[in-house]
Amino acid sequence: MSIVVIGSVAYDAIETPHGKRERTLGGACTYIALSASYFTSTSIVGVVGSDFADEDRALLSNKNVDLQGLEQVEGKTFFWSGVYSADMNDRTTLQTDLNVFADFKPKLPQAYANEPYLFLGNIQPGLQRQVQREMPNVRFVGGDTMNFWISSSHDELLETIKHWDFLLINDSEARMLVNEQNLKRAAAKILELGPNTLIIKRGEYGAMLFRKDTFFAVPGYLLDQVFDPTGAGDCFAGGFVGYLAERGFDLRGGDFDVTELHRAVVYGSVMGSFCCEQFGVERLRNLTRKEIDARFEDFKRFTNF
Amino acid sequence: MSIVVIGSVAYDAIETPHGKRERTLGGACTYIALSASYFTSTSIVGVVGSDFADEDRALLSNKNVDLQGLEQVEGKTFFWSGVYSADMNDRTTLQTDLNVFADFKPKLPQAYANEPYLFLGNIQPGLQRQVQREMPNVRFVGGDTMNFWISSSHDELLETIKHWDFLLINDSEARMLVNEQNLKRAAAKILELGPNTLIIKRGEYGAMLFRKDTFFAVPGYLLDQVFDPTGAGDCFAGGFVGYLAERGFDLRGGDFDVTELHRAVVYGSVMGSFCCEQFGVERLRNLTRKEIDARFEDFKRFTNF
Repeated sequence: MSIVVIGSVAYDAIETPHGKRERTLGGACTYIALSASYFTSTSIVGVVGSDFADEDRALLSNKNVDLQGLEQVEGKTFFWSGVYSADMNDRTTLQTDLNVFADFKPKLPQAYANEPYLFLGNIQPGLQRQVQREMPNVRFVGGDTMNFWISSSHDELLETIKHWDFLLINDSEARMLVNEQNLKRAAAKILELGPNTLIIKRGEYGAMLFRKDTFFAVPGYLLDQVFDPTGAGDCFAGGFVGYLAERGFDLRGGDFDVTELHRAVVYGSVMGSFCCEQFGVERLRNLTRKEIDARFEDFKRFTNF
Repeated sequence: MSIVVIGSVAYDAIETPHGKRERTLGGACTYIALSASYFTSTSIVGVVGSDFADEDRALLSNKNVDLQGLEQVEGKTFFWSGVYSADMNDRTTLQTDLNVFADFKPKLPQAYANEPYLFLGNIQPGLQRQVQREMPNVRFVGGDTMNFWISSSHDELLETIKHWDFLLINDSEARMLVNEQNLKRAAAKILELGPNTLIIKRGEYGAMLFRKDTFFAVPGYLLDQVFDPTGAGDCFAGGFVGYLAERGFDLRGGDFDVTELHRAVVYGSVMGSFCCEQFGVERLRNLTRKEIDARFEDFKRFTNF
C-alpha cells in the first residue's frame, strides 16, 4: 500500500563543519519518499528541471519510488544552499532559487488516485488542498508546513489543515501557528483546528505526539557526530508515515492501538537520526532495514525504566 | 538512611511573567533537601545569617530535614535576585550578595559522619573535597558544580570529582567541563575523569544518564504553565539521590540493577517538574508523595511504545 508524497525535489549546496557539497540531491519530497521507502512503496508528485540527473532518478527508482508524478520541464531544478554554524544549531540560507518549482502545480497521476495514504509536504496550502481533493478515499492524510505559509497564508493554511488527520511540524512552527508560547497549550489549540493527531519535532531534543486520547514523547537519539542535519525532519516524516502505512494503519477507521502511533514517532526519530550521519541523502543509499530495526530496539533500551 | 546535603541556603527575589516575590526561601541546598525529603531523611550543612526566619527553619524541620549542620552567624543570609524572560528560557541575575555565604566553611556535625549518602552541592571544589574526606564510608558521593568553578578552578574541580561516584550537571556545563560540543563525546570524556555515573540535565528537554554499562534518556515533563523554574535542577538532584537512598542503593557495592538508576532520573524529572508549578519552594510545601508517584506513572505512560 503506497504513500503518495507531494513536495519539493531539489539540488542543495550544503556546508557544515564537517565539509561541503556543491550540488547534492535534496528537497523535502525526496527525503520523505526515500525514508518511507524502507517501510512501504512510495509515489511522488513533484517537478524537476531539464538538469535533473539520471543518477538521481535512478536512486529514487532503485528504492521503488514511483516517479510517474515527477514532472520534468524546461529549466532548472529548485536549488537551495545553506551553511551550518559550528555547533550545528543554526543554519543560514545563502541562496534559494525556486526555478521550475516556482510554478509547480501538482498533477496527480491517475494511477495514484486510489492509494490509501497521502503526505502533503510543505508547499503552498492551496495546492496541498487541491491534491487532497483528488484523493478523497485515503486512510489518512496529513502533512507539513513552514513559517512562511503560517505568516503569509494563515487563513488558507487553516482551511487546509482543517481536513487533515495529522499535522507534523516543529516546535517553533507549532507556537507560531496558534500564537502560543507554551507547547502543551499550543498543542491543545492545534487539535481544535482539525487534525486529530499532532506530531511536534524538536530536532536533537526528540519529538512528541498529541491526541485527545494519548500523549507521547521520546528523546532524540544521541549521535557522536552530527554530520549534516539537512533533511532530518523530512526523514522523520517518512519514517512516521512509512511505519503506519506498513502496518496498514487507518487513522479514520475507528478502533486502533494508539501505541502504534507512538512507535511511528520512534521510527520517525530513528530515520531522522540516520539522516544526520552523512551528507544529504547519502546515508539513505546504503542504510538497511536491519539497521533501522536495530536502532528502534536501541530506543527501547535507552528509554526503559 | 539519611542523605547529607551541602550547599547554599539563601533568600531569593524572583520575577517571572507570572509575578514576583521580593524575598522567598531559596538556595540549592534548600531545594535539594526539600525534594529529597519525600524519599528519605536529609541532613544539611550550610550557613545562614541572623536574618534567617523561624518560619523557614520550621519549613525545613517539618520535612524532617536535620538542621544540626545549619550554622547561623552574625550578618545577612546569601541573597540572589533574578528576572526571567517572557518565554522563560533566559534568566538575568540582578543581584548576588554572598553575605555570610562568602566565608562558608562547611562544618560536618559528628552526628552526620556515618550517614551513607553525600550530595555536594555547588560550592568551591576544595570545600566539597574537604567535606568528602570527613565521610569516607559512604555508599555514594556525588554532586554538582557550575560554570564559574569550571573556568576559575578547573584543576581543583577535576581533582575533586575524581573521587565522586556521580556528577550531576546541565548540558552546557558538561560541554564546558571537557571542551567538547558533542554531548555524547563530552559524556564519554567525563566518564574518564572519575565518576562512574554522569547525569546531564537539559531543562525542559529532559535528562540523560551515562555510564559505561548503560545509557538512559527521558524527555521533560510538559507543563501547561511554567510558573517559576528557579530550583528545578536542584529539585531534580533531590529526587535523583532521594530515590536511590530510599532504595538503599549502593553505587560502590558491585551488583545492582542499572534500571534503578534510570528510575532515579525519572524521579528527578518528576521533582523538577513540580518545582516549576509555583514560585520558589512553594510547591514543596503542599506536594504529596502520592502526587509524585502518580506523575512517575504518568512518565511511564507517555514514554511507552
